[in-house]
Amino acid sequence: MTFKATVTVRRRPTILDPEGKAVEHALQSLELRGVARLRIGKLIELHVDAADADAARATVDEACRKLLANPVMDDYTIALEEAGA
Amino acid sequence: MTFKATVTVRRRPTILDPEGKAVEHALQSLELRGVARLRIGKLIELHVDAADADAARATVDEACRKLLANPVMDDYTIALEEAGA
Repeated sequence: MTFKATVTVRRRPTILDPEGKAVEHALQSLELRGVARLRIGKLIELHVDAADADAARATVDEACRKLLANPVMDDYTIALEEAGA
Repeated sequence: MTFKATVTVRRRPTILDPEGKAVEHALQSLELRGVARLRIGKLIELHVDAADADAARATVDEACRKLLANPVMDDYTIALEEAGA
C-alpha cells in the first residue's frame, strides 16, 4: 500500500530562528503591522510504500531521525494518510 | 486581538524540486525503501495583531503575496486561529 506522509519540522521554541526574525523585520519594513513571533519550519511531503500504516510510520520516523530533522534542535510531527494507488 | 497564523508554502506540483529530490536519494542511500515523490515546502508560523479575523487574514495574505511565497512558483495556504492574549 502507498501512504502519503506529511512531516513538519520546527526548530524548538527555545532556539533562535534568525531566518524567521529576518523575515519578520522585512514584513515590518513592508509596512505590515502587527506581525510578531514569526518562525520558519519545513513541510516535507512524501509517498511511502509499506505493508501497513505502522510500517509506513516507522519508515518516516526513521527518515526524520536520520535525515529530515536535527535531533538536537528540531521537533517533528508525522501525519499519514492512505494515498490512492 | 491576536491571531496565530500557519502558512504553508509549496512549490507548484509542475515545478521541479531539486532539494526534495536530493533528500529522496539520500534516504534511499540510507536503505530506507519505498520512499518516493518527496517534496520540501515551508511552514511559517506567526502571530498577527488585528481587529478581527478578516483583517488578520488580509495581513497574512499580503505577506504571502509580497514576501513569503513566490507568486510564479509557489502555492500557499493560510490557517488562522485565535491566540491566547
